[in-house]
Amino acid sequence: MLVGIDLGGTAIKAGLVDRDGRILLQSSIATNAGRDYRLIIEDMQKQVEKLIKDKGISIDDIESIGIGAPGLMNDRSGYVIYCTNLFWENVPLGIMLREHFNKPVYVENDANAAALAESLFGSTKGAGNSVLITIGTGIGSGIIIDHKIYSGSHYAGAEMGHMIVGPNFYRCNCGNMGCLETFASATAMVKYVIHRLETDKIKSSILDKAEGNTENINSRIIFDAAKEGDQLGIETVDRMIKYLSIGIINVFNILDPEIIVIGGGVSRAGGYLLDKLKEEVGKMLFTSGIKYGDIVLAQLGNEAGLLGAAFIGVNRNRTNKGGCENA
Amino acid sequence: MLVGIDLGGTAIKAGLVDRDGRILLQSSIATNAGRDYRLIIEDMQKQVEKLIKDKGISIDDIESIGIGAPGLMNDRSGYVIYCTNLFWENVPLGIMLREHFNKPVYVENDANAAALAESLFGSTKGAGNSVLITIGTGIGSGIIIDHKIYSGSHYAGAEMGHMIVGPNFYRCNCGNMGCLETFASATAMVKYVIHRLETDKIKSSILDKAEGNTENINSRIIFDAAKEGDQLGIETVDRMIKYLSIGIINVFNILDPEIIVIGGGVSRAGGYLLDKLKEEVGKMLFTSGIKYGDIVLAQLGNEAGLLGAAFIGVNRNRTNKGGCENA
Repeated sequence: MLVGIDLGGTAIKAGLVDRDGRILLQSSIATNAGRDYRLIIEDMQKQVEKLIKDKGISIDDIESIGIGAPGLMNDRSGYVIYCTNLFWENVPLGIMLREHFNKPVYVENDANAAALAESLFGSTKGAGNSVLITIGTGIGSGIIIDHKIYSGSHYAGAEMGHMIVGPNFYRCNCGNMGCLETFASATAMVKYVIHRLETDKIKSSILDKAEGNTENINSRIIFDAAKEGDQLGIETVDRMIKYLSIGIINVFNILDPEIIVIGGGVSRAGGYLLDKLKEEVGKMLFTSGIKYGDIVLAQLGNEAGLLGAAFIGVNRNRTNKGGCENA
Repeated sequence: MLVGIDLGGTAIKAGLVDRDGRILLQSSIATNAGRDYRLIIEDMQKQVEKLIKDKGISIDDIESIGIGAPGLMNDRSGYVIYCTNLFWENVPLGIMLREHFNKPVYVENDANAAALAESLFGSTKGAGNSVLITIGTGIGSGIIIDHKIYSGSHYAGAEMGHMIVGPNFYRCNCGNMGCLETFASATAMVKYVIHRLETDKIKSSILDKAEGNTENINSRIIFDAAKEGDQLGIETVDRMIKYLSIGIINVFNILDPEIIVIGGGVSRAGGYLLDKLKEEVGKMLFTSGIKYGDIVLAQLGNEAGLLGAAFIGVNRNRTNKGGCENA
């Protein structure tokens, strides 16, 4: 049996997962981010121990423990290099859990874990090379190459939210100008609407839907307004689609994956988003002479993080086509 | 012994290469692009046969034949999907050579071949993950992942010249607006200088160096003018550096390679280019918490294409760490 943990800024979700990708038992506890990291890791240990007890198994039945968390993770050393949501820097998460449980422990970026889950059990199943782009308050991504998580030489790869795609009216949190997530995340859409309302003094049903309070504006409201023909809504969605398409074209021209999958909260805009995206990307393909990857929506929803985390160890030690260990 | 062929729009360079990467004998013939592809392939066959004869060996001594050419190559099928310089579309290059020589034949994009050569014998030797960016009239690139050429799921990857990085004053040949090669190639630098001379009517020593004729302007002249303090020269180089840095930051944030190597004609600007580039990239790194890849200049020069081509087959069948075939 595998243990998967999805460590977020709000909640820690942990689960027991079998080799077929079935979540047999899971629980969620509050992260209470901001506390000493030792307290958070202690809670996580107790959470896993309770799952094992409740399931009536023992730690000996556990093959490995995998953790997905937002930020930069060094999977070789087990350190969390950097995690904004938890205010963590250089935290020996993997090492502490390994010492406690005396089991193999793997830490990965949560988008990498979700990409793995989609590639094993969801939208990109069977594809050797795939890229997951998760669009929510920010933009995360995970890369699968030759069926395995690819996180780069310094665990800093697959940060597509920080791909620079053009000048914008505000800077990204990372300090750079023009990151994809400042154009195409939910936050970016809201910022753009507020910016336009303030600078152009235009009328929009978005403000009505938000009951006159810009703090209530979210990407769902903007998509709804666009669907109903609201001019600012349409312009905001079109702008988001334009830059997301540039991001996807750049991924095609660099990595040329078999499939690109769109996940995260914004992907709930569903077919409306996907149709527009495919149309725009189609206009920008490098050549009509070859087939490019398909663009699809994620299938596993919120469980992708936990599920993918459980399989990090299995994937790391995966035997690729040749019939032997690769790592 | 290996045969490597660097098929360009002007010349076909072929060579006999040993397993240690020594070019034992080589020759160059004119491509005469525009001819029926069968005539070009026939010339290539004769060229290889002459090398074998001149070296006093037989075709039985040849392990494999590798060809690098600009454009999109399908290495599995042996077809050249698309090659602008040769006016080729869907040409069965690999198939014809395989039938003629009855040997394994591999075709690859020439920048991928050069990236492989640098990774085996040059600037990126020893690095598992590296990226070569060649800057000349256009911008090409080659990606090495886990010591092997990575060309994507449809052989359309590693086209970094067509990464979109911001709006420009002219469109790329590919039809899109804002491709990296319209900002950072030699052609882009020349276009920018002429654009500025025409629109701003400014004075610049670049025009003097070009003997008053804009057709004589090239990137070397522009770099020389910048080094001497010419304002337009400095602005043009700074602009090129700015966008090349964006391209490199995007590569760091997506692929996070161990090393990025700059090759092609523009890399002859050497340390002057490299120092400026490292400074600009340094300002834009995502976090200071981790080590990013080094940026270096290519070492193998014009021979990289031929040398890398020779090793495509060896690389394809490379046994990675696990100790068995991977492909």
